[in-house]
Amino acid sequence: MDKTSTVGGTMYALMAELYPICRSITGEGVRETLHILQRLIPLEIHEVPTGTPVFDWTVPKEWNISDAYILDGQGKRVVDFQKSNLHVISYSQPVRQKMRLAELRKHLFSLPEHPEWIPYRTTYYNEDWGFCVSHRQLEALRDEEYEVSIDSSLTDGHLTYGEYLIEGQSQDEVLISCHICHPSLCNDNLSGIALATHLAAWLKSQGKPRYSYRFLFIPGTIGSITWLALNEAQAGRIRHGLVVTCVGDSGQFTYKKSRRGDAEIDRAAIHVLKHSGAAWTVQEFFPYGYDERQYCSPGFDLPVGCLMRSPHGSFPEYHTSADNLEFVRPEYLEESLARYLDVVEVLEHNRTCVNLNPRCEPQLGKRGLYQAIGGDSEAAKKQLAMLWVLNLSDGRYSLLDISDRAGMSFREIKRAADALESKGLLRVV
Amino acid sequence: MDKTSTVGGTMYALMAELYPICRSITGEGVRETLHILQRLIPLEIHEVPTGTPVFDWTVPKEWNISDAYILDGQGKRVVDFQKSNLHVISYSQPVRQKMRLAELRKHLFSLPEHPEWIPYRTTYYNEDWGFCVSHRQLEALRDEEYEVSIDSSLTDGHLTYGEYLIEGQSQDEVLISCHICHPSLCNDNLSGIALATHLAAWLKSQGKPRYSYRFLFIPGTIGSITWLALNEAQAGRIRHGLVVTCVGDSGQFTYKKSRRGDAEIDRAAIHVLKHSGAAWTVQEFFPYGYDERQYCSPGFDLPVGCLMRSPHGSFPEYHTSADNLEFVRPEYLEESLARYLDVVEVLEHNRTCVNLNPRCEPQLGKRGLYQAIGGDSEAAKKQLAMLWVLNLSDGRYSLLDISDRAGMSFREIKRAADALESKGLLRVV
Amino acid sequence: MDKTSTVGGTMYALMAELYPICRSITGEGVRETLHILQRLIPLEIHEVPTGTPVFDWTVPKEWNISDAYILDGQGKRVVDFQKSNLHVISYSQPVRQKMRLAELRKHLFSLPEHPEWIPYRTTYYNEDWGFCVSHRQLEALRDEEYEVSIDSSLTDGHLTYGEYLIEGQSQDEVLISCHICHPSLCNDNLSGIALATHLAAWLKSQGKPRYSYRFLFIPGTIGSITWLALNEAQAGRIRHGLVVTCVGDSGQFTYKKSRRGDAEIDRAAIHVLKHSGAAWTVQEFFPYGYDERQYCSPGFDLPVGCLMRSPHGSFPEYHTSADNLEFVRPEYLEESLARYLDVVEVLEHNRTCVNLNPRCEPQLGKRGLYQAIGGDSEAAKKQLAMLWVLNLSDGRYSLLDISDRAGMSFREIKRAADALESKGLLRVV
Repeated sequence: MDKTSTVGGTMYALMAELYPICRSITGEGVRETLHILQRLIPLEIHEVPTGTPVFDWTVPKEWNISDAYILDGQGKRVVDFQKSNLHVISYSQPVRQKMRLAELRKHLFSLPEHPEWIPYRTTYYNEDWGFCVSHRQLEALRDEEYEVSIDSSLTDGHLTYGEYLIEGQSQDEVLISCHICHPSLCNDNLSGIALATHLAAWLKSQGKPRYSYRFLFIPGTIGSITWLALNEAQAGRIRHGLVVTCVGDSGQFTYKKSRRGDAEIDRAAIHVLKHSGAAWTVQEFFPYGYDERQYCSPGFDLPVGCLMRSPHGSFPEYHTSADNLEFVRPEYLEESLARYLDVVEVLEHNRTCVNLNPRCEPQLGKRGLYQAIGGDSEAAKKQLAMLWVLNLSDGRYSLLDISDRAGMSFREIKRAADALESKGLLRVV
Repeated sequence: MDKTSTVGGTMYALMAELYPICRSITGEGVRETLHILQRLIPLEIHEVPTGTPVFDWTVPKEWNISDAYILDGQGKRVVDFQKSNLHVISYSQPVRQKMRLAELRKHLFSLPEHPEWIPYRTTYYNEDWGFCVSHRQLEALRDEEYEVSIDSSLTDGHLTYGEYLIEGQSQDEVLISCHICHPSLCNDNLSGIALATHLAAWLKSQGKPRYSYRFLFIPGTIGSITWLALNEAQAGRIRHGLVVTCVGDSGQFTYKKSRRGDAEIDRAAIHVLKHSGAAWTVQEFFPYGYDERQYCSPGFDLPVGCLMRSPHGSFPEYHTSADNLEFVRPEYLEESLARYLDVVEVLEHNRTCVNLNPRCEPQLGKRGLYQAIGGDSEAAKKQLAMLWVLNLSDGRYSLLDISDRAGMSFREIKRAADALESKGLLRVV
Repeated sequence: MDKTSTVGGTMYALMAELYPICRSITGEGVRETLHILQRLIPLEIHEVPTGTPVFDWTVPKEWNISDAYILDGQGKRVVDFQKSNLHVISYSQPVRQKMRLAELRKHLFSLPEHPEWIPYRTTYYNEDWGFCVSHRQLEALRDEEYEVSIDSSLTDGHLTYGEYLIEGQSQDEVLISCHICHPSLCNDNLSGIALATHLAAWLKSQGKPRYSYRFLFIPGTIGSITWLALNEAQAGRIRHGLVVTCVGDSGQFTYKKSRRGDAEIDRAAIHVLKHSGAAWTVQEFFPYGYDERQYCSPGFDLPVGCLMRSPHGSFPEYHTSADNLEFVRPEYLEESLARYLDVVEVLEHNRTCVNLNPRCEPQLGKRGLYQAIGGDSEAAKKQLAMLWVLNLSDGRYSLLDISDRAGMSFREIKRAADALESKGLLRVV
């Protein structure tokens, strides 16, 4: 299969291009990433200066790194940042030093249970430095003198993030948010970036949507806090939202509810998974995970959930070098995008109607609604969908409510409502 | 067993008498049926002229039929309406024509999976004609010329229905509705007619009930629409209602909830089935089935459920010649009537009371309430019933609520409430 | 094991001391019992005169007994009150009479299914007399003349009960109520007395609690009715309550809900059992059992539940001589007291807070809250507890609500809230 011949393949190719870049919560890696995305969507890039107060936090110094290694007694690079940017703990201070193994080991981290994998570690808010290595690398080190070098800088600079607003017929917004702060990690980070980018590109290619759609490409935690602090007044426009992450692996879909638990986005996502034909799981909200933690903080309480495949921390490859281009596949990305589009379809078309002929059933036959709805084999189902819409359209039930009560897909119920509207039997309230 | 020696037998005998009549949604068959019922209850017969507008519908032409047949090349009746009125599609236009088998077959309907059964079909709102035959009959036809004759008429006339109101102490009504539009079909049609008639006769033989009871014997769909259109203002008096059908087969009881889902009739019917000692099923409301579709349309939303045995469409004999006098039995009819009487008992006696000695338990012994409630073995249960009534009678809980919370039958709780009322410890609010 | 070296042992020793006393709903046995308890807690003893009207009831005559026996033809005591006070039906009238076995047997009660056990019976409100005997004793009686003697008195006197109020910072009260009217019965009666006494002693030894704690040691039914009648105005101060009984056997814990079903005491008790690490059961409220029947009568509807081990009537030893000092054990008493203390901890510390930094998460690290919360292995859990408290503290959720939603113990959530309060991130509303 030519991986780029499908939308899944296109998303995968974008991930492959972004994979080598060393991202962190600030720095050139983020800028480079966003510039690549700008080829696909007209992303606006924001730069927020170091030291800017954002609620209880402060925008940190900008971190950049050009090289890092550990040399052994023979001057050989036994650990080399050029081979994997995971080798350096993110936000490591610059260092150039000689030390014996005993001292060095305090700065080395490995995963004994997965001896070939390099862990991913950060030290954003503690000034420190260190290397992540495979356990096999660690065990091969002899007791000799090593030369350690991290050529990094922590300077006043900026926090960088990307934003793209597709204006809809309404100022009410749908938020799609993903984090862009991880280096060479695929499922956790790049899969979300690829999906959000292609979802935005698809929406852009369509007519003006009902809702406005805001896409955020931000560093985790500090990025959403920064955006919320700088856009506090506007945040109230967000009517529905999803945090996108871990959408490229083979695991079954998982929807983590918003703090509200019964928001329309929660019901829409669960409805879509229920009718997807595949196994799925739902998680109640908990105040841990990705940026939904910030969107769902009590002072905002936005209806933002998280639609993913395997949740963070639930797969052993999470936050290791094994979350690589082998771990994610074009077909899973494509299926994930399809589910997001299904959710968008529900949000765009969900509405509450009133039956304009509420006393007894209207005579569908004389309006050609039996024929209008086509094929014989499907006719009974389509008729039942119309009867459900007519029966429950008393102004209290939305089409999504009706779908759930009828046990039919939103698409079937929407089609019935469209037919009834076209014959003057139904009107949106 | 002499089938007429029991109430089940009497109901069965009525069904046997009504069985040969060719009923449809209008016509002489309906009148003949209602006249037979008038021997048992003082039914008022209404005639609504063809062309009368009833909401979105119009009362159709009256259909009558005297004979129909198909003659083969030898002039032999190979299909004969005199042998079964199911042979002619209801509302078939008159026809007298010769045709080859190939042309005739477009008008013949059979059930290949049940080769001995004749299906039941209608063409109320499409002008057409046809015959229903057993698959064996169909297969026996050779390629020759046939003479087809349907001696029917579609003329301006009336839609006929029967109505009987038993006046109660209150103008609030209980609606009992059954359809009378099927020809020789027993469980679907005649069992409901037999049960409704005997329930009405029984209520008439008792003292004035608490509620008024309205019995409707109407053609399906167009009959309930007509009644609701002509009695729109009065429909609001209906406080509880049941559609009666499929009450003569051996299947377990099924209660289909009203659209409201938690109306008193829903809770009463489910309570009765729960304490019936037999297996039973409950169905959530869905906008398909019998006339509850119209009573539960959003403009009326009446609390009308459907208490039946095997639901429509769930048994293979449904809408075929196999739904005959063998398929229904006196003992099942009798058991069904008993459940309807149980529901009537709950509706008649359900009430909300206040405990007049609400602070601590009253001393039951000094009022002889231990003795008054009789036999030793049952005494503990009867005492517990009184304690439940006393504890929950704070004006918020009805006796039906109390029965459900106590897990005791309504009859036991009602008996306890009666005893407490007689001693001045309880008063209806 | 030295049984008195633990608090369980101390409670057990108190039970052993109280065991021989012949208690009833009135009389010297009750006084003697309360005087023994006064050595441990400053109990106030109330005397309510015979004839006092208490709601629908009247304080009965005082019953006392000094001796009772049945002599056979040889003058031998074949039944002897001195050997077990269960031999005499409580509230038996005085009698001294000779009679043949046939006559005597009308006054003898035994348990054929447990031939060695003496049943426990009362005749408080019917003037009668009788003896309870083991079935073996009954069967050994020959047909001869017996001399029956019950040296009891029923005279105008008093109903006696004990009360102890520990004043808290608030006048809102927690009620702890136990019955003291059973003679030599351990689990049903004495275990509750021992637990309530030691719970009171423990609370007295602490600083002033948040709530006031009212301990009642009362005869069953008539005692709670008397207290409620004499303290009607004050009863409304009771915000939470527990009836203590059957807390010394080996059965698993059972919590019987208050009539309200969702009172804070119900949720606190269930929370404690859920996190106790042992199997447990919950019962919906029913209007039978102990004094919760009176506290939960509709005129009071107090939030009073019942936290016990094996419920009344669920074990064969119930109301027989087999509910003795072998049936209860120090370790079970001690575990029961621990659960009561857990419930008290929830009630004392449950509160609703507001997050003072509600927009996005506060930066816990810069406040030392990661370190403050200590040990590495527990750190993640402690951090998660803080995030839960911060996320849900919007003024709608109490710490108990948060514990239940987080699936964490109240103690963990309370500790997180304490830490956050100490850093100014949280405030009680």
